[in-house]
Amino acid sequence: MNKSIAVFTSGGDAPGMNAAIRAVVRMAIASGYEVHGVIRGYQGLIDDNLRPMDSRSVSNIIQRGGTILHTARSKEFMTDEGQKKGAANLARRNVSALIGIGGDGTFHGLAALSRFWPGQIIGVPGTIDNDLFGTDYTIGYDTAINTALESIDRIRDTAESHDRFFLVEVMGRWAGFIALDVTVAGGAEYVVLPESGESLQQIADLLEAGLARGKRTGIVVVSERGKAGAVHEIAEKLEQLGRHEYRVAILGYIQRGGSPTARDRILASKLGAYAVQLAAEGQTGVMVGEIAGKPVATPLEQTWSRRDEKPLDPFLMEILPVLAQ
Amino acid sequence: MNKSIAVFTSGGDAPGMNAAIRAVVRMAIASGYEVHGVIRGYQGLIDDNLRPMDSRSVSNIIQRGGTILHTARSKEFMTDEGQKKGAANLARRNVSALIGIGGDGTFHGLAALSRFWPGQIIGVPGTIDNDLFGTDYTIGYDTAINTALESIDRIRDTAESHDRFFLVEVMGRWAGFIALDVTVAGGAEYVVLPESGESLQQIADLLEAGLARGKRTGIVVVSERGKAGAVHEIAEKLEQLGRHEYRVAILGYIQRGGSPTARDRILASKLGAYAVQLAAEGQTGVMVGEIAGKPVATPLEQTWSRRDEKPLDPFLMEILPVLAQ
Amino acid sequence: MNKSIAVFTSGGDAPGMNAAIRAVVRMAIASGYEVHGVIRGYQGLIDDNLRPMDSRSVSNIIQRGGTILHTARSKEFMTDEGQKKGAANLARRNVSALIGIGGDGTFHGLAALSRFWPGQIIGVPGTIDNDLFGTDYTIGYDTAINTALESIDRIRDTAESHDRFFLVEVMGRWAGFIALDVTVAGGAEYVVLPESGESLQQIADLLEAGLARGKRTGIVVVSERGKAGAVHEIAEKLEQLGRHEYRVAILGYIQRGGSPTARDRILASKLGAYAVQLAAEGQTGVMVGEIAGKPVATPLEQTWSRRDEKPLDPFLMEILPVLAQ
Amino acid sequence: MNKSIAVFTSGGDAPGMNAAIRAVVRMAIASGYEVHGVIRGYQGLIDDNLRPMDSRSVSNIIQRGGTILHTARSKEFMTDEGQKKGAANLARRNVSALIGIGGDGTFHGLAALSRFWPGQIIGVPGTIDNDLFGTDYTIGYDTAINTALESIDRIRDTAESHDRFFLVEVMGRWAGFIALDVTVAGGAEYVVLPESGESLQQIADLLEAGLARGKRTGIVVVSERGKAGAVHEIAEKLEQLGRHEYRVAILGYIQRGGSPTARDRILASKLGAYAVQLAAEGQTGVMVGEIAGKPVATPLEQTWSRRDEKPLDPFLMEILPVLAQ
Repeated sequence: MNKSIAVFTSGGDAPGMNAAIRAVVRMAIASGYEVHGVIRGYQGLIDDNLRPMDSRSVSNIIQRGGTILHTARSKEFMTDEGQKKGAANLARRNVSALIGIGGDGTFHGLAALSRFWPGQIIGVPGTIDNDLFGTDYTIGYDTAINTALESIDRIRDTAESHDRFFLVEVMGRWAGFIALDVTVAGGAEYVVLPESGESLQQIADLLEAGLARGKRTGIVVVSERGKAGAVHEIAEKLEQLGRHEYRVAILGYIQRGGSPTARDRILASKLGAYAVQLAAEGQTGVMVGEIAGKPVATPLEQTWSRRDEKPLDPFLMEILPVLAQ
Repeated sequence: MNKSIAVFTSGGDAPGMNAAIRAVVRMAIASGYEVHGVIRGYQGLIDDNLRPMDSRSVSNIIQRGGTILHTARSKEFMTDEGQKKGAANLARRNVSALIGIGGDGTFHGLAALSRFWPGQIIGVPGTIDNDLFGTDYTIGYDTAINTALESIDRIRDTAESHDRFFLVEVMGRWAGFIALDVTVAGGAEYVVLPESGESLQQIADLLEAGLARGKRTGIVVVSERGKAGAVHEIAEKLEQLGRHEYRVAILGYIQRGGSPTARDRILASKLGAYAVQLAAEGQTGVMVGEIAGKPVATPLEQTWSRRDEKPLDPFLMEILPVLAQ
Repeated sequence: MNKSIAVFTSGGDAPGMNAAIRAVVRMAIASGYEVHGVIRGYQGLIDDNLRPMDSRSVSNIIQRGGTILHTARSKEFMTDEGQKKGAANLARRNVSALIGIGGDGTFHGLAALSRFWPGQIIGVPGTIDNDLFGTDYTIGYDTAINTALESIDRIRDTAESHDRFFLVEVMGRWAGFIALDVTVAGGAEYVVLPESGESLQQIADLLEAGLARGKRTGIVVVSERGKAGAVHEIAEKLEQLGRHEYRVAILGYIQRGGSPTARDRILASKLGAYAVQLAAEGQTGVMVGEIAGKPVATPLEQTWSRRDEKPLDPFLMEILPVLAQ
Repeated sequence: MNKSIAVFTSGGDAPGMNAAIRAVVRMAIASGYEVHGVIRGYQGLIDDNLRPMDSRSVSNIIQRGGTILHTARSKEFMTDEGQKKGAANLARRNVSALIGIGGDGTFHGLAALSRFWPGQIIGVPGTIDNDLFGTDYTIGYDTAINTALESIDRIRDTAESHDRFFLVEVMGRWAGFIALDVTVAGGAEYVVLPESGESLQQIADLLEAGLARGKRTGIVVVSERGKAGAVHEIAEKLEQLGRHEYRVAILGYIQRGGSPTARDRILASKLGAYAVQLAAEGQTGVMVGEIAGKPVATPLEQTWSRRDEKPLDPFLMEILPVLAQ
């Protein structure tokens, strides 16, 4: 019997997941594997909701946002019983390698599953937050920053016309990558990051100084803290500190969707293919990534434990105040 | 001395305002007028903040969102004294016709001003809400619905992947045009309009029925009521009525900005030019518009008093439930 | 037995065709019909290549360009034998109404088929060229002009940077609608239309005059004549007449594809639904359209024979030279 | 007297050039320099066409394609006399450092100028072709591949609908970077690169094999060879080799324009700032670049002489045939 690979997506969806699925399926078939797609992530493993996939299953999905395999939060899979059920299904179907596309939650799940299942586990970094050690960029990040940037460009039109100050909240969970990149690319005045906290007095002073120089308008980008909404509180405090009104925009879920950019499609294609190559080599317990343009593999556990070794770009932090004059 | 036209933008900004300014300026110059741009709407009239404009002043602005003349809310202009100041400045500068691009607030202002100033007043409909009688579409509407639609397309990616229900709030002040058009174009399941109120039980039942048919996901578009935020309350009530969670997205200010679409640039060009032609013919107290493809003029007062004679598209309302199966 | 509707797409594809198919299918089912999709247009009729469609068949296609039913040029269908084969298949399957989405070629085919088949024939205008009498706009037109406009905006960046003159060829077959709308929306200097021919001397003089006024760059939009390529000859002749170089861009096939705009999705939804309503009323031999915002029906033969009664917008033609200063 | 920096753009324009100019100007001012912008590249140096720039000169340009400083081909600058004139102007104006944003042509010019002018010369890589050693990506590349990708996505709609094969020519001069990335990202079937030549027989066989498997449609991406047009010849030869028709699309100049993507704006901001930092450190004769996420400096001459050490991504080349099944 042929060896068999199962692939699933889990966690928050990210643009480029479909391109990754496509690459996994086609590389697997070319390498002699049978391929199963698991529907709805870990819940699908528990429910034995797998479907066979071939080359045609993934035609015309490279440009699509979202994931054709769906995703779900599975409380059941957070229990040993749930994981054992999933393991039993994988064993019965003779799956030799399981490829999970998602974020650190997905990789925690793979690690937990491996206590009950001896097959190979390989992770592919699919999340817009880019908060995984072991890869310069995660699949979905480039699209998310461009989506946020389009929104910033639109908001700037109205901010400029009305002489308004805007606070714009972007996603990122607890990482400031999206916020920093979008601040620089959008020509915004200031960024409020989770890593460094905010000095509201500093923001108020900066915008006041700009006003003195003739800048009647400004945009401050705020990174969410774990989830959406912190920006409202920041707006209130700022209004107490100064004389201005602040309009608020929460970009929200649009950052998760949309047709993936070129870079996301290419990264997803490379990482999906590489994951299969590693499986064929017998590897397990790693996440594929791209560092300095080269495909690399990182032990799953390090993708979250060494997160702090992936700092915000120091050069960008350094030049941001100068660019934002 | 040459006759002189002054042009300004006022109220909420709308994509296409710059294209309208450009058409006004170039048609005015071609018709032998001098042209002044008023900076920051009615406040600019009060502050005598006018600047001469020529053909080159409006080069390369047709594709830009926002307005190069800025806009502002002027409390001072809401008083007779403010209006008299504005009138005095226009008189001193020998302006013969004043063209105001904006919404009904702008036109109320023109009417008020005309009590103190004998010059010609002409309105151009620039607002994303499309809530003005006298024109099939207002400048900015087409861009706003396409912006909202892009966001709906992105949200659908994540809704589909996660099997989620979303409530998406769009702009429109008290008009449901944006919401209805976006619901149809976005393939959403239901629309909650200000005109008709909502039956939350109906929405809950509809989504429940869809679930029974295998539709695990859905999008409901909600029109704002005057301003943003009603959607949160609707989400809470819906969650009490059924078993689902609802994610919320407020599209907000992105709907005001961005590069105008082809239709908005063309409409703006036509209406800006037509406004100048009417001025040259001696007309006053009207808003230019386009109805059934033809340029028309409507007495300013009717643009808001006859608003109810511009209903939502009845055929669209009729077929929406069928399309949304 | 249930009455049955068959729907197909034919001719050049146009964005919004899928939205129209979706509306036909869902309105038909809601009206008690069975629905068949014909694959590959008239060739599919000949090959009896029909497949049953239900509401789920058309889920998630509203935003997709192209047509899920494909299209093809069928030489065989241009013969009586071919048409008789198609008629026989329709008869054997008990189809009562055939809805064809396409351009005048599609409608000629419907008319020809009706000599051999007694069922109802209804046309839906799907073509980017907008060259059909009986509707203000055809499905696909709005998307095409916006696609062309994006390209013009990009070309302007490079034209402005390099002080170059560009000739940009757009589609339209023998109609100048796309060219005229794109010229106005793109702020281009001149348009060369099939309807009016071109005076190359006029173009050369216009650009020369602009140069004297400091305009070192310009864009001239050229409408294709039946097919692509005329622009090369125009560029050569212009270069002989003056001192400038002209760069050439042929926008080509990108104008046919892409996600449909809001207006195209809405128009397609309305017209697809209306076609089914007309079928249910027993109508035949007509094309559905929208005029002045209302759904209308026009005898098929008039859609091409009265084409001249749908002129280019005279007001736009009048103001174009002024706007382009 | 203050030290002074002059900045110019030259060669083909690229999206992000304005973002780079902005970063140069603001970093220079923050570092105590006066700043001059040279209008129209090397011709501006000869004509002494410089204008002072301050922080406000570069407001709101980060999102704009093209270059506000224009660019031009200067035959005069290719002569010693021309270069001496430029040198004399720089000397008379006391410019201490000259920053040129462009491609290798621009850097050749800097090197030549330095024979007659003792000031610092620093290059910034602005070209869509990405054919410069010393940086992973050039400013403009990311936008160009996304523009090409949008076009491919649109063409795919029409190719799929019509069962057609398309040959799509992209830019790149003599480098295949754009072609390779766009082929992978667009899910195209085959790429024809300048580096490796083409085997038309291979393409014909591949498409024939696909047809046998049910793939009636395909896209082949062709890299231009120095300039546009090679694709026509390839189409003719392919038509002789097989039974298919091939439609041709030359994407052309749209690849040069448009609003820069997030990555291009960020890269441009970093490299523009870094160029000024190097000037302040007294460096000369180098091009700034980014390699593995870090800012680096490379001797100008190596940017073209070591071009071969920047190969196409070997992993991408390896997996492309598998992905394209």
